[in-house]
Amino acid sequence: MDFDLVIIGAGPGGYVTAIRASQLGLKTAIVEREALGGICLNWGCIPTKALLKSGEVYEQLGHLADYGLSVEGRSFDFAKVVDRSRKVAKQLSSGVAFLMKKHKIEVVEGTATLEKASPAPKVVVALKAGGSRTITAGNVILATGARARTIPAIGLEPDGERVWTYREALVPKACPKSLVVIGSGAIGIEFASFYRALGADVTVIEALDRILPVEDEEVSAAARKAFERRGLKFRVAAKVSKLSKTKTGVAVALEADGKAETLEAEVAIVAVGIAGNVENLGLEALGVKVDRGHVVIDEHCATGVAGLYAIGDVAGPPWLAHKASHEGVHCVEHIAGLKPNGLNAPIPGCTYAQPQIASVGLTEAAAKAKGLTVKVGRFPFRVNGKAIAAGETEGFVKTVFDGATGALIGAHMIGGEVTEMIQGFALAMTMEATEAELIATVFPHPTMSEAMHEASLDAFGQVLHI
Amino acid sequence: MDFDLVIIGAGPGGYVTAIRASQLGLKTAIVEREALGGICLNWGCIPTKALLKSGEVYEQLGHLADYGLSVEGRSFDFAKVVDRSRKVAKQLSSGVAFLMKKHKIEVVEGTATLEKASPAPKVVVALKAGGSRTITAGNVILATGARARTIPAIGLEPDGERVWTYREALVPKACPKSLVVIGSGAIGIEFASFYRALGADVTVIEALDRILPVEDEEVSAAARKAFERRGLKFRVAAKVSKLSKTKTGVAVALEADGKAETLEAEVAIVAVGIAGNVENLGLEALGVKVDRGHVVIDEHCATGVAGLYAIGDVAGPPWLAHKASHEGVHCVEHIAGLKPNGLNAPIPGCTYAQPQIASVGLTEAAAKAKGLTVKVGRFPFRVNGKAIAAGETEGFVKTVFDGATGALIGAHMIGGEVTEMIQGFALAMTMEATEAELIATVFPHPTMSEAMHEASLDAFGQVLHI
Repeated sequence: MDFDLVIIGAGPGGYVTAIRASQLGLKTAIVEREALGGICLNWGCIPTKALLKSGEVYEQLGHLADYGLSVEGRSFDFAKVVDRSRKVAKQLSSGVAFLMKKHKIEVVEGTATLEKASPAPKVVVALKAGGSRTITAGNVILATGARARTIPAIGLEPDGERVWTYREALVPKACPKSLVVIGSGAIGIEFASFYRALGADVTVIEALDRILPVEDEEVSAAARKAFERRGLKFRVAAKVSKLSKTKTGVAVALEADGKAETLEAEVAIVAVGIAGNVENLGLEALGVKVDRGHVVIDEHCATGVAGLYAIGDVAGPPWLAHKASHEGVHCVEHIAGLKPNGLNAPIPGCTYAQPQIASVGLTEAAAKAKGLTVKVGRFPFRVNGKAIAAGETEGFVKTVFDGATGALIGAHMIGGEVTEMIQGFALAMTMEATEAELIATVFPHPTMSEAMHEASLDAFGQVLHI
Repeated sequence: MDFDLVIIGAGPGGYVTAIRASQLGLKTAIVEREALGGICLNWGCIPTKALLKSGEVYEQLGHLADYGLSVEGRSFDFAKVVDRSRKVAKQLSSGVAFLMKKHKIEVVEGTATLEKASPAPKVVVALKAGGSRTITAGNVILATGARARTIPAIGLEPDGERVWTYREALVPKACPKSLVVIGSGAIGIEFASFYRALGADVTVIEALDRILPVEDEEVSAAARKAFERRGLKFRVAAKVSKLSKTKTGVAVALEADGKAETLEAEVAIVAVGIAGNVENLGLEALGVKVDRGHVVIDEHCATGVAGLYAIGDVAGPPWLAHKASHEGVHCVEHIAGLKPNGLNAPIPGCTYAQPQIASVGLTEAAAKAKGLTVKVGRFPFRVNGKAIAAGETEGFVKTVFDGATGALIGAHMIGGEVTEMIQGFALAMTMEATEAELIATVFPHPTMSEAMHEASLDAFGQVLHI
């Protein structure tokens, strides 16, 4: 056997798993058809954050008087903004190459398919450099990720010119003056937030009855209000019926609230979801079970085919890099004979718009739908000292506790730096904290994180500052 | 008896305690000689954060090209910067007034002294409005806070003109062009950071051999380097021998590294520590034990005099608002007959400079001095994806674990938003987390908080990204 382990796909799920495998003494190879770091580092999480930072700073330049400051004029060099984000992606991708080398993980550049073999499928790689290479290994982990879902039937087929996916939205030649974003999940909202920050006229279309539909309803409502204050426009409960090209851009025909309308814009961004990369891998011949575009896995990420595992986006939602690496580390520790914790750790989710949104665990509605009696706490940043001092008073923290046990079962935040704060609640839920432990914790003053304490106190009638 | 409880001092310790007392059904009064919210809200934590935010945004205006942005000129209106911070303080102080009303807590404006009585000392208030009022209560809590320490012998007597304490430093008429800050604790460093951000030539003098001497040594060293990159200057292991006025400012004579020198500046800020407000309260006559300027208390904040408790700064270090309110809530729950958790919760500390500094628990050196075998982890932000995307790669996270038990016993951070992140480690320590639980927690990607995970992994040979 050539390797103890071959990983297909070098996104964060794949490469983190490879590092952990190497730490555990497994001789490991990783196959990547495009770029180390995968979508996340090259076309997702990372470059979008670079763009969003530029947008955030630019937008702040329009509100400097709030801080007693002024400038004579503000401008952005769009090419430089985009170029910076590409450099950030490139730096991180190079970082992954360094890590692979350091951990003696062999990187195989090419496209993999699987063939029946024992103890694990053979990996046949059509090499980027030409030719092919067959790799045998004790175990194989699929970490092929996912791609943007499209709906060709109604014209949602990205052409890179007037209809973009996240990919084109990351490297446009110029900043569009007007934009329709189809889909109000994290990806759609982040692009909407960025282009709005640079002055674009942006309308977001959502099929469900509220934006950011996976978030708690109160967060969705607050987010919409906050975004509307920034000039973003929304159509919810909206069905896009046709997307067509016009002379200067696109026309999006839709029906919302029983009313038909057509929005015209320079560009439409399609962000209607994700489809797992399950094709052309030879999964059918192996008998791998695929359900609605995702590989079906068990509690150790095993596919049911001997020696074949799957992690991350290709194995189903939530489509988040940290979920992928969490699964990968578990999977490889299991392969190495350790007894890792189960995969039931709470997975936080973040949306890096302005304001930011972060959550972990159950929404209030989901908890109630499970038949739980809940205790809910809320605390708004508008009465938080640090938020007032920093001029970031938008948003709130909402906690959901199981009324029977006192366990924290969900936390939902919108506001300033909530994506950096949510880890406290993720840790609390991982440690099965109850209100007693959250209340006993001393949160530093003055921080926005005090709102996490207050929202916990509030659920139990002990809130201090409202 | 007039009240179940009288609290003397309406800083965060005092007023939070009053709210909790009211929630517990205690008829409560609070005596304040100056302004609701105390030093913290009016002359400390809160207005400094407002100034620092202006400074931070102003400084960023000098680095906009990093983000592909530009402005034609930047300026600050110093009066507006200061005015904004005063408005923030005023808003919060009014907020406290509202909370007192809402919770039916009687606010008595005046200066209190105590007289022997049973079951608790009588509180005699020289009213602001004139006259006096004697209040009897079942229990009395001293929350009189502290003030800046001065050293008149060597001329460190603030005159409000050329020698400032935090108080004058918050409301100057103009931004000094040059400044000497005596003392490199959080207060000194924050003012140094703010005035430097606005362009002042700032030198910080520290008596000990490193700045921020309560922090972990690696943090002190990194902070100094980062501050020096911003143009701040330092003298450590320095003894100020004389402070004298010159025609245009002050001259600070000092000896550092065995070398005498005299620094001249427009203004000197004295930030050499805190002295508890124990005077003129009648404590001697009551027989209250005072040690080095602070009231001595037991594990429930009792002073030993029947019915008299003390919390917060007046009861000793750390001089932090959240330590005061933590003690106050414990104290009043104890008075109300509850069985609150002990006072041994870890107290995080924050310094809101650029970069920010936050820590909780033991430094590596302190842990070793206790005879513990430690496992130490480190992770630098320069290889953290979000930090790179945001252009905030300065700093690191350091974790200290007890090698014998795996318990997290200290965490030390310097960088971007670490003051909002430290709560996760505070919660971890409160819940007595070991490395297993920190490693099992899923931190969202891409966030700077992933460095907290990595620093925990690093202490146990499992770090992923270095």
